[in-house]
Amino acid sequence: MRIAILGGTGDIGEGLALRWGYDTDHELVIGSREADRARAKANEYETELDSRGLDVTIEGAKNSDAAANADVVVAAVPAYHLTDTIDAVADELDDAVLVSPAVGMQRDADGFHYNPPSAGSVTALAADAAPEDVPVVGAFHNLAAGRLANLDADLGIDTLLVGDDPDAKSTVADLAGGIEGLRPLDAGGIANAPEIEGITPLLINVAQHNDRLHDLGVRFE
Amino acid sequence: MRIAILGGTGDIGEGLALRWGYDTDHELVIGSREADRARAKANEYETELDSRGLDVTIEGAKNSDAAANADVVVAAVPAYHLTDTIDAVADELDDAVLVSPAVGMQRDADGFHYNPPSAGSVTALAADAAPEDVPVVGAFHNLAAGRLANLDADLGIDTLLVGDDPDAKSTVADLAGGIEGLRPLDAGGIANAPEIEGITPLLINVAQHNDRLHDLGVRFE
Repeated sequence: MRIAILGGTGDIGEGLALRWGYDTDHELVIGSREADRARAKANEYETELDSRGLDVTIEGAKNSDAAANADVVVAAVPAYHLTDTIDAVADELDDAVLVSPAVGMQRDADGFHYNPPSAGSVTALAADAAPEDVPVVGAFHNLAAGRLANLDADLGIDTLLVGDDPDAKSTVADLAGGIEGLRPLDAGGIANAPEIEGITPLLINVAQHNDRLHDLGVRFE
Repeated sequence: MRIAILGGTGDIGEGLALRWGYDTDHELVIGSREADRARAKANEYETELDSRGLDVTIEGAKNSDAAANADVVVAAVPAYHLTDTIDAVADELDDAVLVSPAVGMQRDADGFHYNPPSAGSVTALAADAAPEDVPVVGAFHNLAAGRLANLDADLGIDTLLVGDDPDAKSTVADLAGGIEGLRPLDAGGIANAPEIEGITPLLINVAQHNDRLHDLGVRFE
């Protein structure tokens, strides 16, 4: 499987790239708005994996070049860049599955709060922005980026998947399950995304109010 | 500690009563709109505990009588009965902490969805309905009633607490922590309740889409 991680220079993109590089044999390409920056980060990830004895090649390219020929395209960009990012790669998404991990949050004096776009969720926004024949799957919403990118950290957590195309969801579940310690769980259609995305600000609030907890994930038991 | 469980004849009330009866020495009183029904259910719970070798007395009374002299009053009623229930006991809440476990949900073709009242959350609705000097704590929102009421079932899950009065929140955290396998976690103020309450419909959706999962709870790791 060839996976393009758009915004793969950001913190969630870094974590996914390192975990897939470490735990799987998937071909990885890091996308960014600037090809040079993508290649520099891809080299950093290769160096990190090499330091652990893994000789892995990770490509770097402009987002649209990264998306071309990828089987799965992960839009690992902030919610406010999501529509622009999808528009920029739309012509390259033939036969690809688009994955949306972004969440909209706002912070006030009380803590972090879920702040969905008018589409209802960020995942639904991605589905609206994607070409009609490109299946969209929401996944990886509630992962603490620092913990994901730290290959010494055990995960032991779940990721919830939503999507309206069962085959696409199954493809992404396999990718997620390839990461050691990450259990993919089906949460139904994209209409069920808001309650999943809302967990991310909650994880930050819980970590802020409980001394020994940080970089939290969630597990359904 | 004397705990009144209003709506204690319902399924979450039953679970809390049985767990506190089994795991702690707190005085318990079941409240209902009808005293006879409360007493009948209290007797059922006593019988269940007796079958496990525990000689526990559980009282039953009309909601307002149950609330009188209680240190903690749990409004274990559906969200649409919450305001009426609090109004009916408001004069009896002197020096009590009011606990709100209710969640507003709706179901459509896609699954269950969080449906908060205009107050922002059901916990905030409870705070609005309570007399001004009565501290309100949101807790026990994401517990599967059947699993809670089955004393043979291990919990191993968390409950998130929100409240604007630290002492009241601490009191409820102690009560929650008295239940074996239930870990109380502070999630900040009542403004942070929506994302917690939203987990409950999500738990139902996840259970519906994953064959081996049911009666789910959540754990933050």
